[in-house]
Amino acid sequence: MSLLLFLTLLLQAPAKPPIQRDRLRATLEELSKFGRNPEGGVSRIAFSDADRAGREYVIGLMRDAGLTVRVDNAANIIGRREGRENLPVILFGSHIDSVPHGGNFDGDVGSLGAIEVIRAMNAAGVRTRHPLEVVVWTNEEGHHFGKPLTGARAAAGMLPADELNVKDEDGLTLADWLRRYGLDPARISAESRGELRLDGAEARRPPGSVAAYFELHIEQGGRLEREKKQIGVVEGIVGIRRWTCTATGFANHAGTTPMAERHDALLAASRVALLLRQEVRADPGRQVGTVGYMHVEPGARNIIPGRVEFPIEIRDLSMDTIKRISTRVFDGIKKIEEEEGVKIDCQPLSEDPAALADTALRRVIQESATEAGFSPLSLPSGAGHDAQAVATYAPIGMIFVPSIGGISHSPQERSDWQDVANGAEVLYRAILKRDVIP
Amino acid sequence: MSLLLFLTLLLQAPAKPPIQRDRLRATLEELSKFGRNPEGGVSRIAFSDADRAGREYVIGLMRDAGLTVRVDNAANIIGRREGRENLPVILFGSHIDSVPHGGNFDGDVGSLGAIEVIRAMNAAGVRTRHPLEVVVWTNEEGHHFGKPLTGARAAAGMLPADELNVKDEDGLTLADWLRRYGLDPARISAESRGELRLDGAEARRPPGSVAAYFELHIEQGGRLEREKKQIGVVEGIVGIRRWTCTATGFANHAGTTPMAERHDALLAASRVALLLRQEVRADPGRQVGTVGYMHVEPGARNIIPGRVEFPIEIRDLSMDTIKRISTRVFDGIKKIEEEEGVKIDCQPLSEDPAALADTALRRVIQESATEAGFSPLSLPSGAGHDAQAVATYAPIGMIFVPSIGGISHSPQERSDWQDVANGAEVLYRAILKRDVIP
Repeated sequence: MSLLLFLTLLLQAPAKPPIQRDRLRATLEELSKFGRNPEGGVSRIAFSDADRAGREYVIGLMRDAGLTVRVDNAANIIGRREGRENLPVILFGSHIDSVPHGGNFDGDVGSLGAIEVIRAMNAAGVRTRHPLEVVVWTNEEGHHFGKPLTGARAAAGMLPADELNVKDEDGLTLADWLRRYGLDPARISAESRGELRLDGAEARRPPGSVAAYFELHIEQGGRLEREKKQIGVVEGIVGIRRWTCTATGFANHAGTTPMAERHDALLAASRVALLLRQEVRADPGRQVGTVGYMHVEPGARNIIPGRVEFPIEIRDLSMDTIKRISTRVFDGIKKIEEEEGVKIDCQPLSEDPAALADTALRRVIQESATEAGFSPLSLPSGAGHDAQAVATYAPIGMIFVPSIGGISHSPQERSDWQDVANGAEVLYRAILKRDVIP
Repeated sequence: MSLLLFLTLLLQAPAKPPIQRDRLRATLEELSKFGRNPEGGVSRIAFSDADRAGREYVIGLMRDAGLTVRVDNAANIIGRREGRENLPVILFGSHIDSVPHGGNFDGDVGSLGAIEVIRAMNAAGVRTRHPLEVVVWTNEEGHHFGKPLTGARAAAGMLPADELNVKDEDGLTLADWLRRYGLDPARISAESRGELRLDGAEARRPPGSVAAYFELHIEQGGRLEREKKQIGVVEGIVGIRRWTCTATGFANHAGTTPMAERHDALLAASRVALLLRQEVRADPGRQVGTVGYMHVEPGARNIIPGRVEFPIEIRDLSMDTIKRISTRVFDGIKKIEEEEGVKIDCQPLSEDPAALADTALRRVIQESATEAGFSPLSLPSGAGHDAQAVATYAPIGMIFVPSIGGISHSPQERSDWQDVANGAEVLYRAILKRDVIP
């Protein structure tokens, strides 16, 4: 190889981003102390004392990284780094609230990984064209107040006003909690004024104000590990349709009622659960369907079940697929109703549309992974993420890193520290790659 | 017809027993006041104040009918009418305790029907060869202390000593409750001394001391009503085998776990419930099998069920049939375990042997019904009764009267007053018919 060719290649190859694995690990371990459970893992429910302490820690990290920090009226934490040009922001981050008895990787990796990216950019002396904003969204898990993505939905203008007035178990509303944070809940849903203020800002992100949103996250499934891939390029976040069904038969004495005269609600519900699996499997694709519980009444050993409440949910990237499968399931339920003499009533509970990742941002992530020497895998996200709310007003891209054993929402939730650092490196590279797209 | 033939027929036909329907109804309605619920029906749990007051009322009725009353050490109430000869007793009766929110016919009809029979015999001037004893058994429903047939099992010598020391929700044991009744729990299980003492007697009935046991009861099912029969001749009380099963799969995220990688405990349990029905139905006969509940863990909409606890019970007059069916079910469960990747562990909970009615007593009841002008139907009892404990030491016969709509253990439990009186008449006739068998 000639010296000239060597120098040319050296100049073309982007410098290895100075992501520091052990520094990132240290901040994640420090964050894990807020709400740590004696048996391992963490309970850092949104708005809890542990969450508030964790947020203070994160705000400190942002400031140390030179970011200008503001908290919007939905309590989202935003750390800003100015760009060279007057352009919409490149936004990236995740959340730090957890489920009860959850782990220390879900959300945390994307939040602290984003701050590590800033530190690495500072070290590399990188200055971007676009302003950059690191975001830590409020109440992603939704354990508090029962609905997930509170902050991300507020930023998308999708938080219904009445949700502010839902009371928690202590009788406090979301509005009360925001006021405790010194915020003004009345301004969450205010119309855009065309700019974001640095303090006490409306939460709403105006369409066009975000050039791209990246979220680094653990996979929460086992595919990357199984297929020995270091980086997941998310195709999109699946849509979810949910129903609550009630099977109503007739409770009767389990000794005196002949088999032919029974109207057993539990047998009818069992058939529906098996039918759902059958219909979900009947089509090619990665769609999933689940019955997560059955509440049986009267629920005694010697009484034929008279009533069963059970949920149905179906998830897929294609809402058409969900629709097609659910139509077949409800046709089959009619047959079960007739054959069992049991009424089965399914009420729609919610419909979360699928959020597809932006094609250009997927390619950016894919190329960033390959250039870093990692093997990428395209896959859907079966779990919900803040990104799905952002997708309503901005292009999104998500980067997954492997979950050991596919375990999540558990104290056993783990990812290899090198995988976490790899994810941050891909995030760094993807931001810079997007930054130069005209 | 010659006058002689007419007179001969008249003398051969037993006189119509002077059962007074309205008197019997009045005592049943009076008894229904003890523990009456505002919404109808009754909660007269054994050992409750309502039960104790009801017992005092019944003891009064017995004394008014000329019976000599004693209470044995298991709190069974016994009213005795001497016979002409030194013979074992003909015993008949039932219970007056109820389930919570139960009805006013289960047990009460057989208890007060027995006393009406004594009153009618007094009115008819009937004197039997055998001594007669009316019995009201203790805690048949078993709501108190969780195990049914307390008094009847004590009389059969089948009450384990440790059951005396089981505490109720107030921390009181069965022994404590018996002492409150002024009884001596230590003497419940004492060996027979060859005779029953009139006061403070051991509860144990020595084998050979009971010539026959009759029990009048409501059907608690719908067959008599449906087939328009007034009297049920019980073939026996079905045996019951019960298991508690645990299906253990793997709880995981309902969004991120592909269908092919799930170990869904609820789907496995659903298949077992349907398999049980299929195997119970596969054989001819009246056997029944029931799964009365499913307790699903974690039990959330978005988590694949990891663990389900559910019961299996199978009932039939033939323990061989129960055994044959359960063997097939457990073979099928092995296949389900393999196919689902879910471990299913079923532990035997209890085995109540079937109690067949005595063939001679069934014939006595059948003939008594026919002679009274009622149409009888032979049928098994799918529910448990005090008679099944008596069957371990004496021949038993049971008389059923129709339950309106087949409803029982409910405030809606009803029987037509004429059907109740018909049952008492058949009981009267059956006692006299048995009395003259050498």
